[in-house]
Amino acid sequence: MHALLEMSPQHAQVAPAIQDALARVEQRFAEHAKSDVRTMDVLCTHVERYRGKMLRPMLVALSGMACGKLSATDAHITVGAVVEMIHMATLVHDDVLDDAVTRRGGPTINHEQGNIAAVVLGDYLFARSFHLCSTLESQRTSMRIGEITATVCEGEMLQNASAGDFGLSEDTYFDIIHRKTAALIAVACELGAHHAGADEATSRRFFDFGAKLGSAFQIQDDLLDLVGDERVVGKTLGRDLAKGKATLPVIHHLASLEPGARAAAAARLSRGQSPTPGSLSIVPDLERTGSIVYARGVASSLVAEARALLAPLPDTGAKASLEAMAAAVITRAF
Amino acid sequence: MHALLEMSPQHAQVAPAIQDALARVEQRFAEHAKSDVRTMDVLCTHVERYRGKMLRPMLVALSGMACGKLSATDAHITVGAVVEMIHMATLVHDDVLDDAVTRRGGPTINHEQGNIAAVVLGDYLFARSFHLCSTLESQRTSMRIGEITATVCEGEMLQNASAGDFGLSEDTYFDIIHRKTAALIAVACELGAHHAGADEATSRRFFDFGAKLGSAFQIQDDLLDLVGDERVVGKTLGRDLAKGKATLPVIHHLASLEPGARAAAAARLSRGQSPTPGSLSIVPDLERTGSIVYARGVASSLVAEARALLAPLPDTGAKASLEAMAAAVITRAF
Repeated sequence: MHALLEMSPQHAQVAPAIQDALARVEQRFAEHAKSDVRTMDVLCTHVERYRGKMLRPMLVALSGMACGKLSATDAHITVGAVVEMIHMATLVHDDVLDDAVTRRGGPTINHEQGNIAAVVLGDYLFARSFHLCSTLESQRTSMRIGEITATVCEGEMLQNASAGDFGLSEDTYFDIIHRKTAALIAVACELGAHHAGADEATSRRFFDFGAKLGSAFQIQDDLLDLVGDERVVGKTLGRDLAKGKATLPVIHHLASLEPGARAAAAARLSRGQSPTPGSLSIVPDLERTGSIVYARGVASSLVAEARALLAPLPDTGAKASLEAMAAAVITRAF
Repeated sequence: MHALLEMSPQHAQVAPAIQDALARVEQRFAEHAKSDVRTMDVLCTHVERYRGKMLRPMLVALSGMACGKLSATDAHITVGAVVEMIHMATLVHDDVLDDAVTRRGGPTINHEQGNIAAVVLGDYLFARSFHLCSTLESQRTSMRIGEITATVCEGEMLQNASAGDFGLSEDTYFDIIHRKTAALIAVACELGAHHAGADEATSRRFFDFGAKLGSAFQIQDDLLDLVGDERVVGKTLGRDLAKGKATLPVIHHLASLEPGARAAAAARLSRGQSPTPGSLSIVPDLERTGSIVYARGVASSLVAEARALLAPLPDTGAKASLEAMAAAVITRAF
C-alpha cells in the first residue's frame, strides 16, 4: 500500500508523518507482543515478516490527520498496532484453516511449527491486541474492537458455511466480504477520526468510507485471483474456486445464464471444488457474460462512493491521500 | 463443582445466591454470544453443552460475597460470563489441537463441524468475551482479562514446546500449570473481590488464593489421569503420557532415579509418546518412588496455603464455601 499511496501527488505532504507513524506502530506492536516465553517471542518475530502494506494502521493515521491532527497521536499508534495485531491473528489462523505452506515468500507458522503453535499464537495475538486496546483512556475503543473482531469471525464462519455453494446470492456475498474484510478496515478509519476528536457522525462517515474501500479491496482481490498475473500477484491463481468460494464475477456469471445452463455450470464448479489451482478455464465464460467487467464496475462504484463521503472534509494532504488510496485499491495488480 | 460446594456444611447459607448468580451468568453468556449468523449461533448453543462445574463464575461470585456483598452484583455476572467464555474458547481450541472426538459425552465441534468452524468459533468467543468485558465501567478489568488470556496462551505454548520432554524441571511444570490453568481461576477470584470494592492488597490475596487452588486443581487432574477410575473420571486414562506431557508424579519419579536409570526411563517414556492410552504400566514404578504420594502432598500443601490466605477475612458462609471448594479440589475423583 506504500506504493499505492505514492501514486498520490499530495503524498509528499503527508509522507514523513505517515512513515513516522508506521515506524511507531511497528515498535508498539513488537513491544506489546513481547513474551517471556521464548517460543512465543520467536513466533511473534516470525509474524512480523507477514507485515505487508500496513493498510490498516496507515488508514488510522491518515483518518486522524484528515480530521485535523498534524500527525498521529499516541492513541492513533495504539489503535494502529491493535488493528494490525488482529489482522495478523486472522492471517495466522487463516493459514491453519487453509493448510497454507507459504506466505509472503516464507514458510507459514503452521507449516514450520505445526498447527498447535499457530492456533495458540493467533489466540495470543488476539489477547495482546485486546490488552493493548484496554490501555486507551475510554472503553469505547475496546468495545468497538471487540465487536468488530466478532464480526470478522462471523464473516469467516459465513464464508466457511457457504463453501461449495455456487448458488450464493450477491447479497450474501456482500455480507461476507463486509464482515470478513471491510469491517476491520472500516473501524480503523472510524477510530482514526474518533481519536482526532471527530464527532459521532463524522466517525461514522469514516467507518462507511473504510467499509466501501474494504469491500472494493476484496472484490479486487477476488478479480486478481481470476485474471491477475501470477508473477505480479505472487500466488497461484484460482484458489478461490479451488476452495469452493463463489466470488462476484462467478455469481454474476451464473445469474446471467438460463436456468438449465446455470445448474449445469454450478454443478461443474461444485464438482471441480478442488481442481488444480490455476486451471482457470472458466475465465473466457466469465468474459462472455461480461462478469469481469461487471465486478470491476461494482468495485469502481464503491470507490466513487467512498471518495464522495470525504467530500465535505477540508482539502488537506491527508484527505487527498485517502482519496488516492481508495482509487489505487482497484487499480493495483498485486 | 456443584457437588464440591455441597460438601460444605455452610453451603446452605450461600446456595440460593450462588444458584441465582450462575443462572444469570448462563443467561448473560447466551445473550452475549448471540449472532445473526445462524451457523455461529447454533455452534454457540452447542458450546453451552460443554458447560460443567462453572467453577470460575462460582469463584467470582463467592469471592465477591466473601468481600462483603450479599449476592453477586451485575459486574460479577458480567465477569463470570467473561471468564466462562474465555474458558470455553480455550476448550474449543484445545479440542482442535488434540483432535478430540468427544467432550462431556457429546461430539466435539471440530469432529462434528470441522476444524475451520471450531477455530473460528473459539476466536469468536474470545472476541465476544472481550467485548462483554468492555461494557464494565473501568478499563482495569479489560486490562487484567487481556493480560491473563495472553498468559493462558503462553502456558499452552510452553506446554506444546515441552511435549515429549521428560527432562522437564518441576519449576517449568509449575510455570506451565500456573499459566495454563491457574491464572484464569486466579483472576476470577481477584475480580470477584475487586468488584465487591476490595482494595488492591485484598484483590491480590484473592488472586493468590485462586492461583494456589488452580494449581492444586491441575495437579489433581494430572493424578486422576494416572490413578483415577476411568468410569468415574469419564475419560480414558494415560492421555498425558500419550501426548508426551510430563506431569508432577512423573517428574518426581524420574528425579528419584539414579542418572542411568533416569535416562533409560525417560527414553522409554519418550519412545512411548503415543502408546495406547490407558496402558499405564508406569503406575507401580511411580508408587515405588513415592511419586503419587509426593504429588498428592504438593497439592495438599497448595490447598492449605490457599485456605490460609482467607484466614484474615470475616467468617461468612461465602468464606467457608471457598475453603470447602479449595479442599474439595483435591479430594474429587472426577
